Amino acid sequence: MLEEIKDLELLSTCHAEDKFHDECGVFGIFLNEYEDDCEAARTTFYGLYALQHRGQESAGIAVSNGHEIQLHKGMGLITEVIKPDHIKKLKGRLSIGHVRYSTTGMSNVVNTQPLVFHYLNGMLALAHNGNLVNTVELRKRLATYGSVFQTTSDTEVVANLLARYSQDNKIEDALARCIMDAKGAFALLIMTEDRLVGVRDPMGIRPLCIGELNGNYILASESAALDTVGATLIRDVNPGEIVVIDQDGLHSRQVIDSPRRAHCIFEYIYFARPDSTIDQVNVYQARREMGRQLARECNIDADMVISVPDSGTSSALGYAEEAGLPFEEGLMKNRYVGRTFIQPTQKMRELGVKLKLNAIEEVVCGKRIIMVDDSIVRGTTSKKIVQMLREAGATEVHMVVASPPTRFPCYYGIDTSRREELIASTMDETEIEKFIGADSLHYLSMEAMFAAMKSSEDTFCSACFSGKYPMEIET
Amino acid sequence: MLEEIKDLELLSTCHAEDKFHDECGVFGIFLNEYEDDCEAARTTFYGLYALQHRGQESAGIAVSNGHEIQLHKGMGLITEVIKPDHIKKLKGRLSIGHVRYSTTGMSNVVNTQPLVFHYLNGMLALAHNGNLVNTVELRKRLATYGSVFQTTSDTEVVANLLARYSQDNKIEDALARCIMDAKGAFALLIMTEDRLVGVRDPMGIRPLCIGELNGNYILASESAALDTVGATLIRDVNPGEIVVIDQDGLHSRQVIDSPRRAHCIFEYIYFARPDSTIDQVNVYQARREMGRQLARECNIDADMVISVPDSGTSSALGYAEEAGLPFEEGLMKNRYVGRTFIQPTQKMRELGVKLKLNAIEEVVCGKRIIMVDDSIVRGTTSKKIVQMLREAGATEVHMVVASPPTRFPCYYGIDTSRREELIASTMDETEIEKFIGADSLHYLSMEAMFAAMKSSEDTFCSACFSGKYPMEIET
Amino acid sequence: MLEEIKDLELLSTCHAEDKFHDECGVFGIFLNEYEDDCEAARTTFYGLYALQHRGQESAGIAVSNGHEIQLHKGMGLITEVIKPDHIKKLKGRLSIGHVRYSTTGMSNVVNTQPLVFHYLNGMLALAHNGNLVNTVELRKRLATYGSVFQTTSDTEVVANLLARYSQDNKIEDALARCIMDAKGAFALLIMTEDRLVGVRDPMGIRPLCIGELNGNYILASESAALDTVGATLIRDVNPGEIVVIDQDGLHSRQVIDSPRRAHCIFEYIYFARPDSTIDQVNVYQARREMGRQLARECNIDADMVISVPDSGTSSALGYAEEAGLPFEEGLMKNRYVGRTFIQPTQKMRELGVKLKLNAIEEVVCGKRIIMVDDSIVRGTTSKKIVQMLREAGATEVHMVVASPPTRFPCYYGIDTSRREELIASTMDETEIEKFIGADSLHYLSMEAMFAAMKSSEDTFCSACFSGKYPMEIET
Amino acid sequence: MLEEIKDLELLSTCHAEDKFHDECGVFGIFLNEYEDDCEAARTTFYGLYALQHRGQESAGIAVSNGHEIQLHKGMGLITEVIKPDHIKKLKGRLSIGHVRYSTTGMSNVVNTQPLVFHYLNGMLALAHNGNLVNTVELRKRLATYGSVFQTTSDTEVVANLLARYSQDNKIEDALARCIMDAKGAFALLIMTEDRLVGVRDPMGIRPLCIGELNGNYILASESAALDTVGATLIRDVNPGEIVVIDQDGLHSRQVIDSPRRAHCIFEYIYFARPDSTIDQVNVYQARREMGRQLARECNIDADMVISVPDSGTSSALGYAEEAGLPFEEGLMKNRYVGRTFIQPTQKMRELGVKLKLNAIEEVVCGKRIIMVDDSIVRGTTSKKIVQMLREAGATEVHMVVASPPTRFPCYYGIDTSRREELIASTMDETEIEKFIGADSLHYLSMEAMFAAMKSSEDTFCSACFSGKYPMEIET
Repeated sequence: MLEEIKDLELLSTCHAEDKFHDECGVFGIFLNEYEDDCEAARTTFYGLYALQHRGQESAGIAVSNGHEIQLHKGMGLITEVIKPDHIKKLKGRLSIGHVRYSTTGMSNVVNTQPLVFHYLNGMLALAHNGNLVNTVELRKRLATYGSVFQTTSDTEVVANLLARYSQDNKIEDALARCIMDAKGAFALLIMTEDRLVGVRDPMGIRPLCIGELNGNYILASESAALDTVGATLIRDVNPGEIVVIDQDGLHSRQVIDSPRRAHCIFEYIYFARPDSTIDQVNVYQARREMGRQLARECNIDADMVISVPDSGTSSALGYAEEAGLPFEEGLMKNRYVGRTFIQPTQKMRELGVKLKLNAIEEVVCGKRIIMVDDSIVRGTTSKKIVQMLREAGATEVHMVVASPPTRFPCYYGIDTSRREELIASTMDETEIEKFIGADSLHYLSMEAMFAAMKSSEDTFCSACFSGKYPMEIET
Repeated sequence: MLEEIKDLELLSTCHAEDKFHDECGVFGIFLNEYEDDCEAARTTFYGLYALQHRGQESAGIAVSNGHEIQLHKGMGLITEVIKPDHIKKLKGRLSIGHVRYSTTGMSNVVNTQPLVFHYLNGMLALAHNGNLVNTVELRKRLATYGSVFQTTSDTEVVANLLARYSQDNKIEDALARCIMDAKGAFALLIMTEDRLVGVRDPMGIRPLCIGELNGNYILASESAALDTVGATLIRDVNPGEIVVIDQDGLHSRQVIDSPRRAHCIFEYIYFARPDSTIDQVNVYQARREMGRQLARECNIDADMVISVPDSGTSSALGYAEEAGLPFEEGLMKNRYVGRTFIQPTQKMRELGVKLKLNAIEEVVCGKRIIMVDDSIVRGTTSKKIVQMLREAGATEVHMVVASPPTRFPCYYGIDTSRREELIASTMDETEIEKFIGADSLHYLSMEAMFAAMKSSEDTFCSACFSGKYPMEIET
Repeated sequence: MLEEIKDLELLSTCHAEDKFHDECGVFGIFLNEYEDDCEAARTTFYGLYALQHRGQESAGIAVSNGHEIQLHKGMGLITEVIKPDHIKKLKGRLSIGHVRYSTTGMSNVVNTQPLVFHYLNGMLALAHNGNLVNTVELRKRLATYGSVFQTTSDTEVVANLLARYSQDNKIEDALARCIMDAKGAFALLIMTEDRLVGVRDPMGIRPLCIGELNGNYILASESAALDTVGATLIRDVNPGEIVVIDQDGLHSRQVIDSPRRAHCIFEYIYFARPDSTIDQVNVYQARREMGRQLARECNIDADMVISVPDSGTSSALGYAEEAGLPFEEGLMKNRYVGRTFIQPTQKMRELGVKLKLNAIEEVVCGKRIIMVDDSIVRGTTSKKIVQMLREAGATEVHMVVASPPTRFPCYYGIDTSRREELIASTMDETEIEKFIGADSLHYLSMEAMFAAMKSSEDTFCSACFSGKYPMEIET
Repeated sequence: MLEEIKDLELLSTCHAEDKFHDECGVFGIFLNEYEDDCEAARTTFYGLYALQHRGQESAGIAVSNGHEIQLHKGMGLITEVIKPDHIKKLKGRLSIGHVRYSTTGMSNVVNTQPLVFHYLNGMLALAHNGNLVNTVELRKRLATYGSVFQTTSDTEVVANLLARYSQDNKIEDALARCIMDAKGAFALLIMTEDRLVGVRDPMGIRPLCIGELNGNYILASESAALDTVGATLIRDVNPGEIVVIDQDGLHSRQVIDSPRRAHCIFEYIYFARPDSTIDQVNVYQARREMGRQLARECNIDADMVISVPDSGTSSALGYAEEAGLPFEEGLMKNRYVGRTFIQPTQKMRELGVKLKLNAIEEVVCGKRIIMVDDSIVRGTTSKKIVQMLREAGATEVHMVVASPPTRFPCYYGIDTSRREELIASTMDETEIEKFIGADSLHYLSMEAMFAAMKSSEDTFCSACFSGKYPMEIET
């Protein structure tokens, strides 16, 4: 097990994507009608497969047959962790699953999800996307009552709260009390022996939607997972809403009704799949529109627009369209990036990014290039790409970024690196431009970003740009 | 992970040793002087290596560096789970370790030990050999207070009790209250950030001893583990005693002083290594003496004594010596019994035991054989061995068993199969003799067994023979 | 080892890309100056990493330290087969490597490359991309002389020929004789203890190019591998040329000078990386031009152009540009396609392609779509994508293919499926259009394809379209 | 794959048994009647399982279905290499298998056996136990004819000879010519599509016997493998005899009739299982008799006899019986010696042998001990055991060795360490006695050894004692 973790460490060292990292993806299903006993697990497998981009560190599936919950999980991709033989053993009509990218560095098998607990009234499985901001306080409070914790995950905190509140209560009542206590961002799935429950934090920071497949309900982090399993998107879970699915169907309870929404704007910029629609906005269209807005804000005289693939492509297409410039594939990505890595020699280390990206000299040589990326985190990769384009003969390289400068860390479930590593928190735009060696550098403005989203600032959490956190953080 | 479990299932199906199975082995060390940061973990590794016979299903080591506890564990033998790279990361001067054979069939990674918990006052690691008999009651009581359980192990119950009792207390005080609540058999190691604690149940059912190595204290299930790491046996932990080892040395507290001792007699008959000395009695000598007693009780006219290797050899040597008969190696064991297995054809299935044992025709042909085994559980293996000896030409096969008939299940941490599978609980000796096809069958009497132990019945738990359980069992 | 092969079988069943498959990629380097003893192996590792798209079934690296050749190879991706510890042991200044996709189904470890042989004059390592068409005849001839074969690969045949011809000869002389005997397509690297030799078949069917890195020579299947390791493309190896690299530099010998060139046209259409330049033509630009040609040949009234990612994107961009239509990302690809797979339920099986591709309803709904793909093999995937687009609301779906219909199998090292599986060999275009359910279907004409290549028919092998094989095939 | 080899290297460093190592075990079967298509492979699996002591480094099974030969092999124990899924695919009525311990250090997957070859007349699988002494000459001769070699094994040399001689011949005729050319020790199994062939070298150095199971013939290195699968020993293959098994039964041809026999005496002393009978002598009885002879030659006043388990036990029992002394188990062996190992600390390194053996203080304390071992190679282990016994309180330790001093290396397939490592080749008995720290040291004399075997010197190869090699060695 630790072997794999070491490999992942190597990965994060060598492949460092210079991007924010999402934390998790969740998927759950309650079957009323089913072909065979493994259908719930199998559908969850495919759902997680579609959500793999939200976490590649560990994966797991729990099922309930009405009496008992069974679990299989481990380190790795869902296809590495769950094999056909495992699916055969995961029998039951309810299932929840989880893919994980750890925010804290405590990446080991004990922190993989779903977590399964025995409590007073039976068994509980939990799968959580998000991050509580008052975990220390809650752990301390629970510990004084005698609670013990085997993991460092806030999901275990939620489970202990649930157990404590469920003495005489149904799980949804206990859960309603929990979400009063738990501050932070969460899209949480809970499975008891006979019920599937979903809840979304009061501001709707992390996404969670409801789907339907042949009369069966599904809960998933993104609508693309619904498409993949052939289900239809019904609606998003509302911020502060608890959704209970049992054999009588879907029941909703609006526990908290916050006027402030705070949907994570970075889901649209980078995290979510372009083919997902979150809180009624399609991600691809949002990105393309951000590209168009960007073109309106910049006014660069150039020969062509290229993107840093794959995440910059949608906005680059929007930019090219708006600017009336040709879009070209000036950078090619190696599609077979592995998970372990040989340390490069000193000479090669300087090349670095070439292992993943390569400039096409025939395309860029002698040309004035506008290069679109979705965001800049540390700036080191951007610097190398600009250099690569110049070496391939580009006469000008203008870097345009389809989001504002990322200056502040996220406390709501996203791994944003430490603040001092965020280039935009220590340098102004002129300094960054100089650092990355571009002829010019342009970020999307906050206003243009919200305009692209066709919505206002107070619908979103954009704290990573503005530092205005929608709720207080435990220190 | 589950792959390995599947293999283990195959193993238990195909290799079924027709023996009782021990549950666990524990080993802990507190270093005052040490060569390097990994010495505690390395010594624990070797200690567990010497205790591997007590559990081959999972293994784990936890260390503390004074501030924090780290853990590595997994399914498999200690040499499969702990690799050199793991040892390098397990830095700290305290360490506890565990090897496990599951009694309950819940053999998965979540039940591996040591278990590590965060609680009010810091961190706790637990390694447990034994079985509580009032777990259901304790879990229920704890659950009403809001406790949740991630495993099915009673060790987690103990951890929750400890956490609950340690609000304002030192760990040893909390532990003293725990062992008032916890009924059953246990030899338990607890490690905090800076202390190593050992406790043995009030009747001393499961073994635990104290050793010393270069001024450092060790706690271990068997003295053979002390020998292996070069340590010296100081004494056994007393029944009902808590032993605390910290940088000031070893502190003892006698919490409960039970007049009744109940040392597991089966440790001497089969479980423990012959080179261990438990509660002042050397296992090899006990077995050899049981063989002598057996020879005195039987009076069989035969040509030679052979043993069912390896566990029957010590008593067979005692028998041969007492009976004045030559001891011969009439049965040879394949030393390379693997852990997975190919299903045999029907023809081969009948042979069965030949994969592990083979009779030497040149030795047994035309001879009257006394075959000594340490115990009979289901009798199926004995039947096949008798048949094998006859096919090799033995004219008579007398089976003598160096223990009384095993008629009752164990509730104190030993996997004894279900009662209906114990041949002696459904058949009398004549029927068993007929079933296994021996010319005669002889068991050691209870009296002779205690005589061999040079002690009285009320020093031992011999409930598997007598049904007289030293304490009540939760139903 | 066979486990992995089973997984690959599953892969080919479930993920069947409905594409032709390339056979292999090769990379070799001779270092005159080097930082450390593992630099040759490490550079080869990175070179193969850049060539991974040419074969994902097995990988291997051989090095020579001047006296002896060492080898490490296995089933899997290069990053799975070669770990840091292996690189450390692969010391030497010469290295060749290989990635493989098997054409014949004999996918096992014995057929992995490089192959290493001891022969009269020392040791030989061979890495081969291509396929001989007179293997049966050559094997038979060699066998009558007493040769034995441990693999089914034609590379072993070449090694035996080489050994037979090198009695009194230098390896390049023996090789010159070999390529008189060996009919077919080949780009072959041979490493002796102190020389790196490359040869390309007389018509140049398979690609092989020469690069330079800090004064050291490299041979590689594609120039993108040179870019990745920081090297510069010098030129392609000429058809029929033997290139010998030793400590005195690069020596060339033109063994056969065929007037007919037959560069594989499918390298440009699908196999090679867009950022490679092969025989002076950049692949991306060739594809984009094929898209433009296609737009000129078609005259479709539509709202947008989309591509089947990733291979259809370059030509789709060319098409959109020429047609003056917007290019949109109407289909999204799951970037985390694993290598093992859970069998879908019947319901899901119908969905099939959704695991890899998803239509963006917001983009395509209500729109008339031109969908560009690089080629059609069996047509089953195309059919599902068309259906998916219709279900997402597209009002018209016109499929345009940036190559002519593939009607004939390849015998020169490409896995083209059996002829009866090639939809265009059993249906005419109207039938195919109906089969895939498109509103219209358009293929690129042969003339337009050669126009896009700015060259004539007799420069290329386009037998998969025309059935005109540049050389006879053994039956 | 290389990972496992590294582990094996660690093993040989840390566990160094201080014993000679056997090279290989072979097993083959031809089924006329069978339950299912996998029965031949399954029976071979069990046969190899019984021969595992002859080689733990790699294992493999080849089967023929009459038309084609299939193979599965790999590094590791037979139970690690061959899994149930592999057996299912190994269909055919003929099968041969191999377990291997490499003599030369070239321990990698390419040298695993069986080796399978295509040659002029079809396919050949070979499994070889032994060592040719004129390989260099044969390889050179074959290479001048154009042969290439992919392995360093002499089995590949035999295969090339066979191919060369089988132009117009049946395999057994070609084989007859081969064994004229091939000097050395060999017990070789060859499988064609429809025949199983066995051959033993002209002096019968390595063992090979014929068994019968339900009318089907078996060839195996040792009779214990026959017992394990339920077969009956018919006879040994004669030195210089070729045995052909096909659907018409067993055919024999005596190719060479050498007056000199040279059965390896070390098979009886250490290599073979005690339950095997080789060339009409049962191994256990031979060892016991050697112990008796030893007791007659020594005249030691002592309290008890103990053995170094397991290999010294049979002769220790013979010694004790003859000397009229009690046999005790004074040394206990850890039965769970793993295959990888943690490097011990300096302190522990001195203990060393304690990881495998432990003295029982209660048995040996205050006693005068005769310790019997089968042989001494380097003497380092003996030295540590003597020291261990003294530390446990033994007042005298007399080491008696049930074989003569091993002074000369073996060239016939046994790994004897280099000559300078053989303690008896550099020290006389007095020096060895002093080195190992025993009160006295006694070896069995050559005369007594042959007396125990009830045969004369010229029946055996005892070159490792005498340096009189039965045939010349290539220098």
